[in-house]
Amino acid sequence: MTHLRHLPLGYGGEFDLISAALRQWGRLASGVGDDCAVLEVPAGMRLVLSVDTAVEGVHFRRAWLTPQEVGYRATTAAFSDIAAMAAEPVGVAIAMTLPDAWRGDFLNICDGIGDATRAVGARIIGGDLTRGRELSLTLTVIGHSASPLSRGGAQPGDALWVTGRLGGPLLAIRAWEQGRAPSSESRARFARPVARFAEARWLAAHGVTAGLDISDGLVSDAGHLAAAGGVQVVVNLDCLPLAPAATTDDAAQSGEEFELLVTGPASLDAAAFEKTFGIPLTCIGAVAPPVSGEPAVEALRHGARVQLPRGHDHFPAA
Amino acid sequence: MTHLRHLPLGYGGEFDLISAALRQWGRLASGVGDDCAVLEVPAGMRLVLSVDTAVEGVHFRRAWLTPQEVGYRATTAAFSDIAAMAAEPVGVAIAMTLPDAWRGDFLNICDGIGDATRAVGARIIGGDLTRGRELSLTLTVIGHSASPLSRGGAQPGDALWVTGRLGGPLLAIRAWEQGRAPSSESRARFARPVARFAEARWLAAHGVTAGLDISDGLVSDAGHLAAAGGVQVVVNLDCLPLAPAATTDDAAQSGEEFELLVTGPASLDAAAFEKTFGIPLTCIGAVAPPVSGEPAVEALRHGARVQLPRGHDHFPAA
Repeated sequence: MTHLRHLPLGYGGEFDLISAALRQWGRLASGVGDDCAVLEVPAGMRLVLSVDTAVEGVHFRRAWLTPQEVGYRATTAAFSDIAAMAAEPVGVAIAMTLPDAWRGDFLNICDGIGDATRAVGARIIGGDLTRGRELSLTLTVIGHSASPLSRGGAQPGDALWVTGRLGGPLLAIRAWEQGRAPSSESRARFARPVARFAEARWLAAHGVTAGLDISDGLVSDAGHLAAAGGVQVVVNLDCLPLAPAATTDDAAQSGEEFELLVTGPASLDAAAFEKTFGIPLTCIGAVAPPVSGEPAVEALRHGARVQLPRGHDHFPAA
Repeated sequence: MTHLRHLPLGYGGEFDLISAALRQWGRLASGVGDDCAVLEVPAGMRLVLSVDTAVEGVHFRRAWLTPQEVGYRATTAAFSDIAAMAAEPVGVAIAMTLPDAWRGDFLNICDGIGDATRAVGARIIGGDLTRGRELSLTLTVIGHSASPLSRGGAQPGDALWVTGRLGGPLLAIRAWEQGRAPSSESRARFARPVARFAEARWLAAHGVTAGLDISDGLVSDAGHLAAAGGVQVVVNLDCLPLAPAATTDDAAQSGEEFELLVTGPASLDAAAFEKTFGIPLTCIGAVAPPVSGEPAVEALRHGARVQLPRGHDHFPAA
């Protein structure tokens, strides 16, 4: 629970923009305005915190998204890290670098940030607005959990599970890059992602041992689980749940899905999960001991080991 | 106290850069690598959190600072908001947008971030690294306090106090913009600022009612105190403590000083403060009831009211 007093702001152009955003957000942002946000962490709870940046030209292009969607997507992407810890969302602090070319869209971006924050039941707790040459949003999100779900607990013998259907964001980007309009379904998966809070809590309550949200792509993120747990993660590509029109390779590589990739009991009740949340829960592999002591990811297709298609890397090796 | 487990990272160019930074930081960043940082907040303590962005070309120019100083300055500026709440620093999460032109300086920037974090006794708790066209550092800093000092408590009858000597950063920027080298003293005030943690705790222990750090400039920040407290703040310009070679107007306008501006008893023992911390504590004005119910700042020179020199505004009204 946040405890922020409302403090009126001073004067100046930067403060006028911030004041306009605060008026638009209303109670969602009540209390913003001191040097710091002040928050109470309930007894028995630990604080979880993550920062996530979305930069124009790197994470999205202006032609692809409305300003509202830019704000909504960046904020949801950040909150997804809180969801992946099976934690409760609390708040978001917004650092925005605003070029002159986007200044007229400022309140629309803020509107999207507000919508995404409201959608997960959190609050806006602070921020920093600065000028710059490219639009950049850095969202610091915080949440609470008595026992956060980490990446590091996968055990040999665990099954590997994934929520939802994969490939939509990649199909949307591919269509835009080829000058086509993506299907409304693929577009929505890119522009209006969902942070899987309730799903993560269900999974944590049913004994999963480790988890993360798919942001770099299934195979890359399986690599994070393997590295963090010191295990081998085996992905059965034939089992991947596919978004409409997506191939298995699309599903294996598509980043910024924000679906959950978890390890845990092979006995999870996928039918009950789908009935509750309206999206599938699919067993797509297993956890094995490390190979020669080294963590690794193995992908199988038709039962044979195949070369791994990797996800996106912002900094490819030279 | 932070409780972070150390989790090895996966592969990829972005992760190689992050891994190199983590190796350089060593124990300062132990535990980074999960979706979120996980932190314990001690019983009776509240969490304080702030985000602060430094963008090349807006907050500094490349020719002015070494890469280490870029990191040091941005990190100290962020921690200064924690100091201004009279809180204990805990940690920093680093969101960096790294253009190709700065890639060779990445570890030097990280070195400066590490030095600044070590200097205040905090830890590196997480981050996000992304590519972009301009160097941008968004630091999310957190701390603890049982009773954070806010901007909003100034009372009519309080005195207005400031730490240190003002004007140095403005003199440094003016020299650079005129193609001159700043004095080493002015340069150091800009390049290696100090977050006044111990000073803020001393002031809080001695009964100050409100406070902030001077980031927008004395007069602008006095306006924040006035607005937050619903009071009139009277600044006696003749009393401003001046950095070497600074004029009163320089001291009134200079931003990013990170000195503390507080309201409280007129009886503070400035001599004891200076003896303890090696910098002056100066009474520079007073708090009065609001004028016609409106918060305001008044500046006096030789006893007469004068037009206020304002600080820097990144977004001047069109």
